[in-house]
Amino acid sequence: MFRRIAVIGLGLVGGSVALATKRARPEIEIVGHDPDPAAGPLGRERGAIDRHEADLSKAVAGADLVLLAAPVDLIPEICAALGGAVEADAIVTDVGSAKRAVVTAGEAAFGPAFIGGHPMAGSERHGMGAADDELFTDALWVLTPTELTASNTYQRAAELAALVGARAIAVDTDAHDALIARLSHVPQLAASALVDVAAAAGDRDALLGLAGGGFRDATRIAASNPDLWVAILRSNRAAVLAGLDTLITRLRDTASLIDNERWDELAAWLAAARAARLELFAKPLYTGEPVTLGMLIPDRPGVLAEVTTAAGRIGANIEDLRILHSTEGGRGRLELVIGGRPAATALAAALTRLGYHVDTAEA
Amino acid sequence: MFRRIAVIGLGLVGGSVALATKRARPEIEIVGHDPDPAAGPLGRERGAIDRHEADLSKAVAGADLVLLAAPVDLIPEICAALGGAVEADAIVTDVGSAKRAVVTAGEAAFGPAFIGGHPMAGSERHGMGAADDELFTDALWVLTPTELTASNTYQRAAELAALVGARAIAVDTDAHDALIARLSHVPQLAASALVDVAAAAGDRDALLGLAGGGFRDATRIAASNPDLWVAILRSNRAAVLAGLDTLITRLRDTASLIDNERWDELAAWLAAARAARLELFAKPLYTGEPVTLGMLIPDRPGVLAEVTTAAGRIGANIEDLRILHSTEGGRGRLELVIGGRPAATALAAALTRLGYHVDTAEA
Repeated sequence: MFRRIAVIGLGLVGGSVALATKRARPEIEIVGHDPDPAAGPLGRERGAIDRHEADLSKAVAGADLVLLAAPVDLIPEICAALGGAVEADAIVTDVGSAKRAVVTAGEAAFGPAFIGGHPMAGSERHGMGAADDELFTDALWVLTPTELTASNTYQRAAELAALVGARAIAVDTDAHDALIARLSHVPQLAASALVDVAAAAGDRDALLGLAGGGFRDATRIAASNPDLWVAILRSNRAAVLAGLDTLITRLRDTASLIDNERWDELAAWLAAARAARLELFAKPLYTGEPVTLGMLIPDRPGVLAEVTTAAGRIGANIEDLRILHSTEGGRGRLELVIGGRPAATALAAALTRLGYHVDTAEA
Repeated sequence: MFRRIAVIGLGLVGGSVALATKRARPEIEIVGHDPDPAAGPLGRERGAIDRHEADLSKAVAGADLVLLAAPVDLIPEICAALGGAVEADAIVTDVGSAKRAVVTAGEAAFGPAFIGGHPMAGSERHGMGAADDELFTDALWVLTPTELTASNTYQRAAELAALVGARAIAVDTDAHDALIARLSHVPQLAASALVDVAAAAGDRDALLGLAGGGFRDATRIAASNPDLWVAILRSNRAAVLAGLDTLITRLRDTASLIDNERWDELAAWLAAARAARLELFAKPLYTGEPVTLGMLIPDRPGVLAEVTTAAGRIGANIEDLRILHSTEGGRGRLELVIGGRPAATALAAALTRLGYHVDTAEA
């Protein structure tokens, strides 16, 4: 377990991680750092941090886990600033909502000790005052291991996720950014555009009366903080542009169906979207009794990323992961504890297709 | 009050109007007509109709109000079929969600006795089985009077709305269609497109875990009935195409801001959409103590549409409307009862600008 965690950025997410960690394990020392002079005292008052350290390098000294919870667009420069300051045995992770730029900067600064992270939890509120020790309960915590990531780094970051009540899932860095663009960033822009289009249509009082529950739902996220969103969109610019382009193409295709009165094709398209929407939120996550998968793994970079992203791809929950290094070197034994037999069986099959020899046992 | 109402189409809306009317005024006879052989017996069983009449022309005979509650794309042909069948003193109205095609067909068939309507209430469910006598409670019921509409027609349709618990609001026909395209039809297509774009991004299991509350809200309406929606989109094709075109332009402009890293302009655009969204749902509807506005009106077509759409434009609730015809002909006195002094004052000012001489009194 951790002795000391440094939390860089005491906003909603950093503050909530600190609070949930102290609630679960009061003996872990939490050192906080935030440029806002009010954040440190409030963090101490709420029992989220043991002390505030105004100097960034001093804040991470002696910590065995460094959590970068600053606004996502500032994380790359924080990585660069902290390059020589973290302990040799520390791991570094972050909570940014886009991962490519952060992972590139993090690996440049910390090598195999860095892993990107993105807890799938949030709130309309922000700041240390809104921190909530239940924020991550039952949430997914995405980790984005790469070829460079050390297995210990993944394992420690997943332990932090579990400590605050979340469950770690591994996703490829670029796949994460493309998915988040399409599931969050592009819908955000579409909601703002829908409001803009409606507001341009006529006087507000008529709009007011005619806007129904569907419009209300579809545009709810348009009420979010604009400055926060600009930082998020900046951090995922390429994936957002690709997603927007796809959306515009789909809408143009749809307009063409309507313009040409191709009603059967329009109905088929609406039906496919309906089916996808229902499937997206109806299917239960794999959970169930823990099953252990064991396999011998070669001691080469990328094995961990390969195995964990295979699990992420099929939605398997890695509840625990350990690597038993062979004393003879060159090989090790990887053990994964997977939630639920269906997920474990699917993962074993996927790993077998990748060339691993997998043995299965009840945990 | 009405003696007999013919309800053509016993789906969710027609069934709910019938049910709410019988609940409020059991003495009004309701004759139903629906091509579905199950609808009539179910309507009788639920107490919504007194009898079912399988022949369309016979169904409207003797009715002083005919409510066309068939699917919106079928209403024009029903108008044409009923042209000579309705009573000379009957008024005809409908509940279709797009108005231009319906109003054109309705006025061709029934002249000043027709007025378009669109109650702003609905449900995910449909059919007589889902009919609910509370469906219209406190809902807006849009009426779209034109130059041709007789004042008696408006008044009777507004009485029906009030009878079922709704409040009538007058909106210009084409303005209604443009507003509804942008508040309902285009958001529907955007929600389906967002699901399509997300589903195309990767495997469903990864999507499943990462789709958050924002995506859930923004795409909820994509789960609606595709066939129903094709009928709706068909009926409002021109306004939907115009709205879609505007949405695509806005999204392209937004992509250009992101591509060119014009972040300040992006922030300003998001902030404007946020303000519009908050305003759209935050402003209370005008209500309050009833105030009567009286004015002499010339006996020319279009006066009623002018006055009622002026009220609709400023969100004033016309709680009652009566026209006292002068025995000398050529002029009459129009009295409007408006909910709330602020709305009454605003409407009086608007009507004065239009050249009316308005006197005000507490009702």
